Amino acid sequence: MHSYFDRLWAQIEPIGRDASSGGYRRFALTREDHTLREWFAAECAALGLDLVEDRMGNQWAWWGDPDSEPGVVTGSHLDSVPDGGAFDGPLGVVSSLAAVAALQEKGFQPRRPIGVVNFGDEEGARFGVACAGSRVITGALTGERALGLKDADGVTMAEALQKAGRPADIGGDDETLRRVGAFIELHVEQGRALADLDPSTSAVAVGTDIWPHGRWRADFSGRADHAGTTALADRDDAMLKAAMFAVAAREEAAARDGESRCVATVGKLKVTPGGVNAIPSHVTAWLDARSSDEQLVLATIEALEQRFPDVLTQESWTPTTHFDASLTARVRSVLGDQTPMLGTGAGHDAGILANAGVPTTMLFVRNPTGSSHTPEEFAEADDCHRGVDALVAVLEDLAGDS
Amino acid sequence: MHSYFDRLWAQIEPIGRDASSGGYRRFALTREDHTLREWFAAECAALGLDLVEDRMGNQWAWWGDPDSEPGVVTGSHLDSVPDGGAFDGPLGVVSSLAAVAALQEKGFQPRRPIGVVNFGDEEGARFGVACAGSRVITGALTGERALGLKDADGVTMAEALQKAGRPADIGGDDETLRRVGAFIELHVEQGRALADLDPSTSAVAVGTDIWPHGRWRADFSGRADHAGTTALADRDDAMLKAAMFAVAAREEAAARDGESRCVATVGKLKVTPGGVNAIPSHVTAWLDARSSDEQLVLATIEALEQRFPDVLTQESWTPTTHFDASLTARVRSVLGDQTPMLGTGAGHDAGILANAGVPTTMLFVRNPTGSSHTPEEFAEADDCHRGVDALVAVLEDLAGDS
Repeated sequence: MHSYFDRLWAQIEPIGRDASSGGYRRFALTREDHTLREWFAAECAALGLDLVEDRMGNQWAWWGDPDSEPGVVTGSHLDSVPDGGAFDGPLGVVSSLAAVAALQEKGFQPRRPIGVVNFGDEEGARFGVACAGSRVITGALTGERALGLKDADGVTMAEALQKAGRPADIGGDDETLRRVGAFIELHVEQGRALADLDPSTSAVAVGTDIWPHGRWRADFSGRADHAGTTALADRDDAMLKAAMFAVAAREEAAARDGESRCVATVGKLKVTPGGVNAIPSHVTAWLDARSSDEQLVLATIEALEQRFPDVLTQESWTPTTHFDASLTARVRSVLGDQTPMLGTGAGHDAGILANAGVPTTMLFVRNPTGSSHTPEEFAEADDCHRGVDALVAVLEDLAGDS
Repeated sequence: MHSYFDRLWAQIEPIGRDASSGGYRRFALTREDHTLREWFAAECAALGLDLVEDRMGNQWAWWGDPDSEPGVVTGSHLDSVPDGGAFDGPLGVVSSLAAVAALQEKGFQPRRPIGVVNFGDEEGARFGVACAGSRVITGALTGERALGLKDADGVTMAEALQKAGRPADIGGDDETLRRVGAFIELHVEQGRALADLDPSTSAVAVGTDIWPHGRWRADFSGRADHAGTTALADRDDAMLKAAMFAVAAREEAAARDGESRCVATVGKLKVTPGGVNAIPSHVTAWLDARSSDEQLVLATIEALEQRFPDVLTQESWTPTTHFDASLTARVRSVLGDQTPMLGTGAGHDAGILANAGVPTTMLFVRNPTGSSHTPEEFAEADDCHRGVDALVAVLEDLAGDS
């Protein structure tokens, strides 16, 4: 019964996979991205769906006339972080297509249009802004600002769009958003909360909210000098400051971590000039901080600002995003009252849409190890199939006669 | 009188200069490198010197027959670290050409051949091994190993040589070394020892030795997980380990620093996967450690090995290099007994040649700020001219009738 899902999964498995790490490198507006978009379009055509692109190039495939009345939309993204896993994003897209195929097979006639969406550039791995696809169409990120974002090689999004042969007049798209009466994003779980519950009822959970989270840039300046000839006392070593900051960020988060989780991470550093025998003149560190309790994140940042004055610049801040209460309750009643409810520390396009006023919720598929954003990220095939079943039931309910 | 020096200096000033930083990016086997080599060949031809390339492509320009008897050679390198200064390397090459021009102008007839050398790839900025040009011809680095070195883009030196249209049969070159009876490398000072002495007698110093120095790679492994969803207790964060190592390296060097200087530097880091919202799975840090006292460097490394077991791999180790005592004494007697004597914490081609048994010494030109390996690196024009004068006097003495 789940052979359609398995076949689609196998089709995209090799695309953008790094042979040495086994992880994925599917970045926005690259050849891999293009290949995945072509694949998505072809599969939608095979299912008889009508594909339209919005003003950011996100792909929406419709079963039924999306302008007849607001539709029920499901989907996720196909891009990845550097050396990401196979599931984060693609599981939601493939499950959505599989759910539509299953509904068609059983002769379901949607009373409201059903949509499957492939959001572009969710991870922000190339241009630095997560959920760029949904942010632009909702106006959370202006088209003008998005066009000016640069990748690590200095290529702007405007240039990358042009090179990819894609329209450059990106921007807010109310028409597209008006078509979305409800959005349900299925996603692999990114921690191991479900793995610790009763196995028989915890393959799939319903999302409750997205933790508040923020991203800060920390700039440390020093003076580039020769590493062999400059006395310690004469040095102004930017690396040393950045290293102390990374250690301090962990300390300050740990001091606040408890039942309300609090985490802080330095995952990226840029060292200038970056020579083995040159004292760094500048180091930029990026800090990601989250908690289920907004106050804990803000207190962590405040403590770091006191210890390292004038280095932090906020790049993004998102308060707690609550999913739509009535939609979440309805989804849960469809799946059964034993279905776990789950908040998440990760950002998602679902969160951007929820903040734009679209009734939104999420489904999470159990992750036995909790690994995420790594080649080891995993979900059992059986659990993936349970996810498709859940999506079928939810779509049947929301787009059906009731 | 120094217009020739000034003219040459102005000619190479724009080559490989980064417009935004003002620093230089002159890396081995690049277009900039090629341009500088062509420039060197043309200037040597204009002086009537005979140019030959050795088995590593280092350029040797001879005044007189180099096979008649061992010659007196001076020179340095033209490549740079990333965002390096204008003086480190080029000052020695330009001063050498200017000294030859001055000797020719005054009608000097060398009794022994005089050579000017431009060593390639001294900084090792592209392929990671410093002094690759002199190491290969002396056999300190085999041609085979050099050919396999890779740059940051994975391009091997063999491929880069081919692309540059240069011979690939690189290797030891005893014939070239036999021609060198004495080698004097003039270099900008890389600290500010001379700036603190009597200004009237400290424009130029004679080198005594090169400090012992080593380079280690420190590999820290962790597990790539999502920065938002992985609890602190479940993390294995490679960045945190590397940050603590960078702080510890400074602590351990500082604990041993004193009259015998001891320094340790982490100037380069590689973070995998390097996403803002991914916990790093691997961080490689490069450690550079030096002292005028070998035991202090080794004790620093030993202390770090105890605090961070099994992470350090030695990439290079060079004990103290003493310059030739009689050559150094003779050069100093030419320049006057008030001439300062200076050891250096930086590696040089002069050190590689000294270790290969070539009688070698160095001249250092005062650096008012001590800045090195940075766009701010500087020497006063007057001091540069004093350097040329010193070189003229030394060549006149060593290659003259005496």
